Amino acid sequence: MDRPLVALVLAGGTGTRLYPASRSDRPKQFLPLGGDRSLLTETVARADFADHVVVSTRPAFADDIPDHAPDAEVVVEPAAKDTGPALVYATHRIAELYDDPVVVVLPSDHHVGDGFAEAMTRGARVAADTGALVAFGVDPTRPDTGYGYIEPGADRGDYRDLAAFHEKPDAETAARYVDEGYLWNAGMFAWTPDALFAAVRDSPLAPLLDALDDGDTDAGFEAVEGVSIDYAVMERAADAAVVPVHFEWDDLGSWDALERIVDADEDGNVALGDDPVFVDAADNVVATDGANVSLVGVSDLAVVAWGDRVLVVPKEQAQKVRDAVSILRDRDAF
Amino acid sequence: MDRPLVALVLAGGTGTRLYPASRSDRPKQFLPLGGDRSLLTETVARADFADHVVVSTRPAFADDIPDHAPDAEVVVEPAAKDTGPALVYATHRIAELYDDPVVVVLPSDHHVGDGFAEAMTRGARVAADTGALVAFGVDPTRPDTGYGYIEPGADRGDYRDLAAFHEKPDAETAARYVDEGYLWNAGMFAWTPDALFAAVRDSPLAPLLDALDDGDTDAGFEAVEGVSIDYAVMERAADAAVVPVHFEWDDLGSWDALERIVDADEDGNVALGDDPVFVDAADNVVATDGANVSLVGVSDLAVVAWGDRVLVVPKEQAQKVRDAVSILRDRDAF
Repeated sequence: MDRPLVALVLAGGTGTRLYPASRSDRPKQFLPLGGDRSLLTETVARADFADHVVVSTRPAFADDIPDHAPDAEVVVEPAAKDTGPALVYATHRIAELYDDPVVVVLPSDHHVGDGFAEAMTRGARVAADTGALVAFGVDPTRPDTGYGYIEPGADRGDYRDLAAFHEKPDAETAARYVDEGYLWNAGMFAWTPDALFAAVRDSPLAPLLDALDDGDTDAGFEAVEGVSIDYAVMERAADAAVVPVHFEWDDLGSWDALERIVDADEDGNVALGDDPVFVDAADNVVATDGANVSLVGVSDLAVVAWGDRVLVVPKEQAQKVRDAVSILRDRDAF
Repeated sequence: MDRPLVALVLAGGTGTRLYPASRSDRPKQFLPLGGDRSLLTETVARADFADHVVVSTRPAFADDIPDHAPDAEVVVEPAAKDTGPALVYATHRIAELYDDPVVVVLPSDHHVGDGFAEAMTRGARVAADTGALVAFGVDPTRPDTGYGYIEPGADRGDYRDLAAFHEKPDAETAARYVDEGYLWNAGMFAWTPDALFAAVRDSPLAPLLDALDDGDTDAGFEAVEGVSIDYAVMERAADAAVVPVHFEWDDLGSWDALERIVDADEDGNVALGDDPVFVDAADNVVATDGANVSLVGVSDLAVVAWGDRVLVVPKEQAQKVRDAVSILRDRDAF
């Protein structure tokens, strides 16, 4: 493409379900999970298909971003208000920084396999050529109930029409979605600023965009509701496309995800960090930043020891870590 | 009594089942469990019924004993060889140090309730008056399968004849023992040196006693087998008595014991250390030396975080911590 391709890396989230590795001052994207480098550093490295990398984050994390992404431009949203405001703000800033850019939006805290750069470049081209808002849809490998799904419409060659977004389904519905060829919503998008702003004009984020145009950034953020880009813009966009992609992908949303990216031992135990002791223990996930963990007579647990914090939860209830974090927040201890 | 009463506190054990609080260089008796002071310090304080306190320990722990028992005489056995050799050696030394003493043997790592001093003094008097080897038998409060039992014989007023020792029973046998009035073997004894040595002459420990009499302590220890005093001497003693006692007692043998000495919250969770986070969690035992533990969706577990170690085990399998320690010893990491 002649137009500059800008990778917009979203690094303002916390990843609370990966507590205690994630903490209020140490979000998930700053963690090395399954590798030597932080997820953010990996994401920025993976974004080398782009001409420029912009990292968008919240004020609390801004000072630490250069440690993970030394060469990236950093855009600090005035307040953490979910992906909708963050992406409108960052895209607005990117439109000022670069001449007629195409933006590819990348979460900073996912696990991604081979074939990523080609797919992103293809999606960017679709966004540039069609003026549509492009969502990337990952080919599902299982009927996961933890992901949202994208229902594709007519096949247009490099992309398909985007028929509908679907929320996280129950197990039966997930199986149907997979059977019917729906795709995982990976939270990756491509658009031109013009295409995004046109869609935002018809969305709850319109006042924020007006404020940004008027230079009233802080006031605009103050007033705007915290909403996701999916809900606020993508689902209502008149002109949306989905680019099916086939790379290995995992959002590492909760501790049970570790067994999908780390090899298990012969008893099905998965370990990240120091070598645990397993006695009559099977199918557990253990993650530590140095502590040595012994599991005796337990199965199907996630056990995480990070710093001075320990978490024990059945893998299949790993989503409920949110509730523990909620209690810790009430104690001002998250 | 006119004769000096000497409390002999046995502090040479490790308490491996309380790993990771207990470690090779931090035995159970050095830990504060359910109190502010170490179990050893509590034991020495509780021994104030005696005229003298002697702490017997192994070489590895000797330097740390004064931190826990500053005023006690310390006897360091040349090698850790179980309670049999330790008690013969320490009693031999006590017979040199004091004039015609009566010895009361106290484990250093148990939980003990009110009424202890009176019971010990009574047992010492029985030992002095009768010349028997005296075992203290704790009135059982449940058919515990983790304790050995003492079968009492004829009632002699302050004491009963000791009919037999019984190993840790299965559940059915334990129930029968309790029904029949057997008592828990608490590992507490009273004797005069003459009585002990007379019994030792007919035991596998006789060569050790000969060596001690000849001043060949190191050689005697080198040659002796590691055996418990129960097995080597008490069970075969011609003249043994049991003094029934009624104080609250727990050997704190494994992590499930915590729920017997610490009050539970309304969901049955018991915590030693920092205030854990419980979400849909019931009947768990948590112990830490500072780490904050979150339990989500689990029940009936013991979770221990101590230093840089973490242990997770179902309460009812808490004995199996031994197997984890065995693996850690092989790694030279206990």
